[in-house]
Amino acid sequence: MVSERLLLGPGPSNPHPEVVSAMTRPMLGHLDPEFLALMDETCERLRLAFRTTNALTLPISGTGSAGMEACFVNLVEPGDTVIVGVNGVFGERMCDVASRCGASVIRVDVPWGRAIDPEALLDAQRAAPHARLVAVVHAETSTGVLSDVEPLKALQQTDTLLLVDTVTSLGGVPLEVDAWGIDACYSGSQKCLGVPPGLSPVTFGMRAVARLGARQSPVQSWYLDLGMIGAYMGAARKYHHTAPVTMVFALHAGLGVLLGEGLEASQARHAAVGGRLQEALPGLGFRLFAEEGRRLPQLTSCWLPDDLDEAALRKALLTGYGIEVGGGMGELAGKGWRIGLMGHNARDRSVVTLLGALLDILG
Amino acid sequence: MVSERLLLGPGPSNPHPEVVSAMTRPMLGHLDPEFLALMDETCERLRLAFRTTNALTLPISGTGSAGMEACFVNLVEPGDTVIVGVNGVFGERMCDVASRCGASVIRVDVPWGRAIDPEALLDAQRAAPHARLVAVVHAETSTGVLSDVEPLKALQQTDTLLLVDTVTSLGGVPLEVDAWGIDACYSGSQKCLGVPPGLSPVTFGMRAVARLGARQSPVQSWYLDLGMIGAYMGAARKYHHTAPVTMVFALHAGLGVLLGEGLEASQARHAAVGGRLQEALPGLGFRLFAEEGRRLPQLTSCWLPDDLDEAALRKALLTGYGIEVGGGMGELAGKGWRIGLMGHNARDRSVVTLLGALLDILG
Repeated sequence: MVSERLLLGPGPSNPHPEVVSAMTRPMLGHLDPEFLALMDETCERLRLAFRTTNALTLPISGTGSAGMEACFVNLVEPGDTVIVGVNGVFGERMCDVASRCGASVIRVDVPWGRAIDPEALLDAQRAAPHARLVAVVHAETSTGVLSDVEPLKALQQTDTLLLVDTVTSLGGVPLEVDAWGIDACYSGSQKCLGVPPGLSPVTFGMRAVARLGARQSPVQSWYLDLGMIGAYMGAARKYHHTAPVTMVFALHAGLGVLLGEGLEASQARHAAVGGRLQEALPGLGFRLFAEEGRRLPQLTSCWLPDDLDEAALRKALLTGYGIEVGGGMGELAGKGWRIGLMGHNARDRSVVTLLGALLDILG
Repeated sequence: MVSERLLLGPGPSNPHPEVVSAMTRPMLGHLDPEFLALMDETCERLRLAFRTTNALTLPISGTGSAGMEACFVNLVEPGDTVIVGVNGVFGERMCDVASRCGASVIRVDVPWGRAIDPEALLDAQRAAPHARLVAVVHAETSTGVLSDVEPLKALQQTDTLLLVDTVTSLGGVPLEVDAWGIDACYSGSQKCLGVPPGLSPVTFGMRAVARLGARQSPVQSWYLDLGMIGAYMGAARKYHHTAPVTMVFALHAGLGVLLGEGLEASQARHAAVGGRLQEALPGLGFRLFAEEGRRLPQLTSCWLPDDLDEAALRKALLTGYGIEVGGGMGELAGKGWRIGLMGHNARDRSVVTLLGALLDILG
């Protein structure tokens, strides 16, 4: 008995059917010319999705957290200072990862549920102009909040690099790697790209690549060393590790669906269905958690009506209707949800199915 | 136009059909009770394959090299001494990874193509009894050599742990994690398990787990921190990173095929077809590279006849017949091959197809 879920949690989402088909494609060797051509095309599709011309744009062979770690281990050396905006779990995680690289971390904290103020990050950098990095989460998966990244392009006038977590934003909301002066960023396959979890797209601009070359110490991770990974992806085709071939087939197909629809159309679709859900929830007694005007359409955080048992209701949706929603984190743990409408699942049918099931349970 | 290859290189091999089907299973969330049950069953199947009762047995969310790195970053602290047996690329890689963890590395080198002498490793440990680890590759994928690991169980009488690379050996040749006193080892999904690349099974015994608890410094990798990964896999089910769900479906299915056949039957199958290939190759003018008596059945390394152009012949097999064989490494680069008969491809049909194509080309 194999269950079929409608995945409306914080990811994974249900993959596009084209992606499922791609995973049944006959296996190729990781050095096969046909695979290398498909990998090149995947990287080119990633550039289009990230809105960048960065040569060093590729999928890391791990989930989103591996992409986060790849960015920090390559850009940071022991003793470096790193400024991190923290308004949720993934900002916290950045601090942990940076510390394990030997960085001295300056936190810019904001209450969970609110957006990071880019001016506060710029102020922190002015107070610590030697900082190697300013790091910020574009779309906080733990709270459903979108932070404004564009003003941070002011960092281009400094020696501090800008690192952005785009795990939940890529494909779902506007993101402009080049126009916003993002030096490095990472994403995940299982959110708005409609691909299973297992790959983390990353892109490094010229300033970030220069940093790799200027390092005094080796990258502490062999597996995530972008100098060596880049030599496999680039003209040299030098063997590093065995690429996860099937997952690359899947990512290639998912990006094909996204670019076939068009980035703006995909973002508009996410905006429309997320807006519809966020309009409907208060009528059922749910209160939205994230700051107004900063709410992600692809991930809605909300408080449940006070009289409802969070875990019991979530379980009733899963077992009675095959619908997964995500539990809350932080303040929302045990009291609220995170509802994802991402990638293939960002469609009206998902909203009416969820609302219909809730009405059926709550009467 | 999608090519269909017979993958007779050093991995990936063609997955079992049951594995391809499993990857089309409807997606589950990574905290779904059904997924957690399937993950538990996958870990139990891994214990049976590794021949261990180790509680900490699980798939790392990356390829075999991520498993290697997971073992080193968790077991080694800066300043530790690590003894590494080196008879090929993967022993070399272990030295590199250990160095990046801040270890002082003592190499025990053997010419490529020969097996590691376990007595030489034990001598090295007697000369450096404070060493944290002895690390050795069971089946060297770069040379096709099997090294004897069992005598290293003598390390159980010391404070030095035994770490073994079983990427190419698991499922293909006998491996006894508990009976041989292996404290930690890692493998890969894409060799004799008949699963696409993307996961690295690891297992840690009690002495290795005690080492995790006795660490003075945090694990330098957040992504590969086995304390945190174990908390997701264990009773706590504490969220760490999003598991690569589809790849776990695939590994679960591949292990099902292996255990359904039986470990001994699988090993006998690999032995029979590898032996058949190794008997036939000299008749075509190929000379076997690996030391006699130490040849892996699942991966045959060989010199080509002197008058043949290695790259041209390999390309003719690929483009004319859809057969991939692997290029040589080290001394064999440009002069020899590595021919894999692994997992689903360890069958007579693979051998007759390859020999038939070679005869067709060479006339």
